[in-house]
Amino acid sequence: MSTQQPTFELRSEEELSLDLIEAQYALKDSQDKKNAKSVLILVSGIELAGKGEAVKQLREWLDPRYLKVKADAPKLLSADETFWQSYTRFIPAEGQIVVMFGNWYSDLLSTAMHVAKPLDEKLFDAYVEQMRSFEHDLQNNNVHVIKVWFDLSWKSLQKRLDQIDASEQHWHKLHGLDWRNKKQYDTLQSLSQRFTDDWYVIDGEDAERRDQCFAQYILQTLQELPVHQTKVTEKWQQAKVPNELLEPSKQVLDKDQYKDELSKLTKKVADALRYDDRKVIVALEGMDAAGKGGAIKRIVKKLDPREYEIHTIGAPERYELRRPYLWRFWNKLNDGEKITIFDRTWYGRVLVERIEEYATTVEWQRAYDEINRFEQSLVDSQTIVVKIWLAISKDEQAVRFKEREETPHKRFKITPEDWRNREKWDDYLDAAADMFERTNTDYAPWYVIATDDKNTARIEVLKAILKQLKAD
Amino acid sequence: MSTQQPTFELRSEEELSLDLIEAQYALKDSQDKKNAKSVLILVSGIELAGKGEAVKQLREWLDPRYLKVKADAPKLLSADETFWQSYTRFIPAEGQIVVMFGNWYSDLLSTAMHVAKPLDEKLFDAYVEQMRSFEHDLQNNNVHVIKVWFDLSWKSLQKRLDQIDASEQHWHKLHGLDWRNKKQYDTLQSLSQRFTDDWYVIDGEDAERRDQCFAQYILQTLQELPVHQTKVTEKWQQAKVPNELLEPSKQVLDKDQYKDELSKLTKKVADALRYDDRKVIVALEGMDAAGKGGAIKRIVKKLDPREYEIHTIGAPERYELRRPYLWRFWNKLNDGEKITIFDRTWYGRVLVERIEEYATTVEWQRAYDEINRFEQSLVDSQTIVVKIWLAISKDEQAVRFKEREETPHKRFKITPEDWRNREKWDDYLDAAADMFERTNTDYAPWYVIATDDKNTARIEVLKAILKQLKAD
Repeated sequence: MSTQQPTFELRSEEELSLDLIEAQYALKDSQDKKNAKSVLILVSGIELAGKGEAVKQLREWLDPRYLKVKADAPKLLSADETFWQSYTRFIPAEGQIVVMFGNWYSDLLSTAMHVAKPLDEKLFDAYVEQMRSFEHDLQNNNVHVIKVWFDLSWKSLQKRLDQIDASEQHWHKLHGLDWRNKKQYDTLQSLSQRFTDDWYVIDGEDAERRDQCFAQYILQTLQELPVHQTKVTEKWQQAKVPNELLEPSKQVLDKDQYKDELSKLTKKVADALRYDDRKVIVALEGMDAAGKGGAIKRIVKKLDPREYEIHTIGAPERYELRRPYLWRFWNKLNDGEKITIFDRTWYGRVLVERIEEYATTVEWQRAYDEINRFEQSLVDSQTIVVKIWLAISKDEQAVRFKEREETPHKRFKITPEDWRNREKWDDYLDAAADMFERTNTDYAPWYVIATDDKNTARIEVLKAILKQLKAD
Repeated sequence: MSTQQPTFELRSEEELSLDLIEAQYALKDSQDKKNAKSVLILVSGIELAGKGEAVKQLREWLDPRYLKVKADAPKLLSADETFWQSYTRFIPAEGQIVVMFGNWYSDLLSTAMHVAKPLDEKLFDAYVEQMRSFEHDLQNNNVHVIKVWFDLSWKSLQKRLDQIDASEQHWHKLHGLDWRNKKQYDTLQSLSQRFTDDWYVIDGEDAERRDQCFAQYILQTLQELPVHQTKVTEKWQQAKVPNELLEPSKQVLDKDQYKDELSKLTKKVADALRYDDRKVIVALEGMDAAGKGGAIKRIVKKLDPREYEIHTIGAPERYELRRPYLWRFWNKLNDGEKITIFDRTWYGRVLVERIEEYATTVEWQRAYDEINRFEQSLVDSQTIVVKIWLAISKDEQAVRFKEREETPHKRFKITPEDWRNREKWDDYLDAAADMFERTNTDYAPWYVIATDDKNTARIEVLKAILKQLKAD
């Protein structure tokens, strides 16, 4: 798909600036409102083509306080980090505009240009495809992404290198490339052909035209931001609720056998988690009182507290609501912990948010694919994702709720909200069924553990982790 | 000041756990309420004394989901980073408990033990004093800090080193020290004497006693959290409002002279900011419409957008309100930008928060010293803090407000709140006067620019930056 390259006439600076400021404030004022958007501008191109100058000029025409500029030096893509990992914290919140000089494409170019064994074309294209999928998901979650490439001919580049005054321009990093090397320039140009067909390409030759085209393209983008998609396109096929969810096992594990197995398995799980070269994410979901807390206690039993992190996921904060729903999970994975346990997860999007209508139908129906892509990219970057659903019967939940209310050190665990959720029991079963059908991938399968016996559940959770760790 | 070392009897595990959970949930439930607190537990000590095990046991007795554990490897203190910089993002929010294994004291110890030229005692003690001041400020801002040192005799340490099974205990970092070296052990012990007198010291000899003492100390802390201080101890001495604030200059700069000076100064400022080895923070405060935005435009005029960051400070978000008021500024400085411009600042605490009573009297009266310490630590770590107050007359403000309302690309800059703030003009003058008197330090002085002429103000802002950059 090639973007229609828009063309612009030079305009009066004052009028352009006024229009830009109007558009900028309209975006800013959309925050927390129904059709709120943010804009992410990825900027790359040939060195000295003037991207810095164009952004500088844009910042002068806009209110500079509300245009964030991020410029990290490009870094090599790594096999054990997703390409988006280091950038997600700069994803703009509703109402914001962020310019990213350093971005996943500059990393990709650096990697392709620099490494001893260069990326082959297939791998390069695979990266580009992933990047576009990621941007597509951002778009759908109201982060409007635009990409601008600043081009410059070989001749002009050489002329500018002749003129450059190193002492004045020391912030030009020049990407560590030898821009005097024609072969390198040609390689970069041919690489850029492989991904810039959906970019707006600006010729850096004429400074005034360049700055105006850039600013007018941003203006046009701001003025034509698409409305949120609300129309549901497909008829929803509700999945059948698996039998085990309707009738969890009532079989009780012998107490001595439990103790014996538990002791062995906790040790085995700790070792397996610890000595695996990959990072591990354990994602726990299930009905209230199904035993997530108890299971977590057993998972970490033989681990040192410095080895793992537990995230308990509740309702999002306002600043989190202003970003794609996966954003708060991206950020929780940024510390690069070896072992991360989630007590409730991103699946909230297709569970509570679906049921309570916090997400629109379009949004939760789209989320399955988004989540699959998210997990795929984690798995591709040396992370194991173990997804566990704990199911109990509705009767057993009632027993446990009452027990919680009557036991001093458990009564904190039960709130009126838990009883309200219980009224939607069947909705949750339906949502879970759809979730299994659509997100039970080969790289991150679901382990459904359906039993009214707490001890059995704990043993099965530990076994599920071991199984997934050995899965490949 | 030496802490009374509490003594504890061994208790039934079940009862202890119940009490701990009750206390933990009481803290959790305090979030967003009047007497909300958080608890920060700093843990250090002799290797193999069992601090990991003690925290592990605590986590089993508590609800592990609500006890965050942070464990960074100790790093050397550096001359161009404050000791708290890398830790502030882990400062607990109201209702949370955080254990920090890696903390500023372990960094200090590492630095003292490792560097080629070890810290002399005076410098070591100076660091300890700064750390205590920082903790004191945390306490006053409702982060209750407790410090626990795990001790172990030389003999026991050697015995444990004999028994250690490297393959099982690979998460023991052993701090890169040679724990077989008696001299090194003695050095560490004597260094620890210099700062642990306000720590709770636990002997790691007996595992059960150790874990119980640690947990009971935490329990006691949680049960005896002090109430917020509300009593004002000193009679407030309102500073006299400086004359220049009451009568800003009306002198108008000649237009040609302005253009000429502006062009020279923007270039000079850009170079000065760019080539200074230190980081630079420009903090702009002043009355609404006094020209902060216009001044910022001129400061960055000759800079590349990748060289600086602008933070526009509005009302804090809820998650920010759950932490010390300086927290959001600490975090904004974490990216280590070379040049950071603040459009409104941490002085909001003693301006809008004082006037609108968002901060209690005790809180804003205490803030001057806290802010001074904050700025001092920045300046001590190779950062220049340029503080500028822009003053205009009340009549001039009315003129500018009306102009904003009538000019298309400025009307976004004016809101009903601006008119409301205007009604409190005199309160702001009083607050500014107190602020100058109490925070006009030699290391970070105030530049008061009082003029109704926009152009003069812009020139003076640029000169102020140059002056402060050359100040030493």
